[in-house]
Amino acid sequence: MNILVTAGPTREHLDPIRFLSNRSTGKMGFAIAQAAAGRGHRVTLIAGPVALATPKGVTRIDVTSALDMLAAVERALPGCDALVMSAAVADWRPEQCAGTKLKKRGMNPALRLVPNPDILATVAPQKGGRVFVGFAAETGDPATEARRKLTAKSLDLIVANDVTASGAGFATDTNVVTLFAPGTAPQPLPLMPKLEVAQVIVQWIEAHWVF
Amino acid sequence: MNILVTAGPTREHLDPIRFLSNRSTGKMGFAIAQAAAGRGHRVTLIAGPVALATPKGVTRIDVTSALDMLAAVERALPGCDALVMSAAVADWRPEQCAGTKLKKRGMNPALRLVPNPDILATVAPQKGGRVFVGFAAETGDPATEARRKLTAKSLDLIVANDVTASGAGFATDTNVVTLFAPGTAPQPLPLMPKLEVAQVIVQWIEAHWVF
Repeated sequence: MNILVTAGPTREHLDPIRFLSNRSTGKMGFAIAQAAAGRGHRVTLIAGPVALATPKGVTRIDVTSALDMLAAVERALPGCDALVMSAAVADWRPEQCAGTKLKKRGMNPALRLVPNPDILATVAPQKGGRVFVGFAAETGDPATEARRKLTAKSLDLIVANDVTASGAGFATDTNVVTLFAPGTAPQPLPLMPKLEVAQVIVQWIEAHWVF
Repeated sequence: MNILVTAGPTREHLDPIRFLSNRSTGKMGFAIAQAAAGRGHRVTLIAGPVALATPKGVTRIDVTSALDMLAAVERALPGCDALVMSAAVADWRPEQCAGTKLKKRGMNPALRLVPNPDILATVAPQKGGRVFVGFAAETGDPATEARRKLTAKSLDLIVANDVTASGAGFATDTNVVTLFAPGTAPQPLPLMPKLEVAQVIVQWIEAHWVF
């Protein structure tokens, strides 16, 4: 298969130096790209700013903002059979980005934000027979948000986790996730290295791709 | 000498996942810590969130926010002969940090910010005979801002750079800086690896410490 994976955070700049971002390190998405390439798939990895080496055999495209990532996904999607949106895309961006560094005393204490487009929702009309996998990283039980996203975005699979759970979440090498798919009971996985979680997700995609 | 170095960005969280930050990678500060330790000094390195290994022989304290960094500097300063503030401390932080992840639709499109304390200005009353070194990373010519900081914060040295200059600034292994000290002409240094810039700064500190 041709598998498109997104990973890492996005950065939403308010000037050339400062940005809004989040704690994603990209480890889960890079593990998925590595696992997929290891199983013989052609993998394109669209990565936000992370400090990780490109997995062997993977084509990597670096982006900064949510709008950059959306554009890269839209370009790559036509050639792909599956999209795994493991990036932690910023929901909001500053309304304006200054061309030069803002002075401390020149900053507005009310930073105006505008919502970013939802990438999965935006590319939903191009889904066709592709397998679409989303993520729900929540503080606390992610089940409600996972079920909402599954329906709202017409996804095939949601990988959900509570980032405050022991061994789970951001900046760790392990994860504790539950898989949510339409019409089936949630499938909780035990605490595993992210690369093993990635293997499960890639095998799930292989099993659910109708070509 | 006992040298205290700060490095990297700070992160100013609006919830457990999202934060305001900046493009600092910590490379300049880590190079200063490495150079100082290599010259036989006892070095304490207070680091914001970065993806760098601790230089050999350096005592490292990891922090997240500007307020964390200020507290760590205040604790370490009494035992130190010099303070090198190479961290890119966030000027502003969100007025509130939510205890759980904010929902996209629950976020306020006007993010209220409050100014962070200036660390060098806050610890200025404890300066005594210590050497205080500041940084001015600007987009464009940093001379005006460097001279302003030198006077306003009663510093011994400002290391200034234009982060938009070729080979200079954030996320690079080289830098082009100019040294500003009271009563002397600015001293521009050529494009050099950050470790060589660090050597020059450490030797400047050694030459200007009156013990």
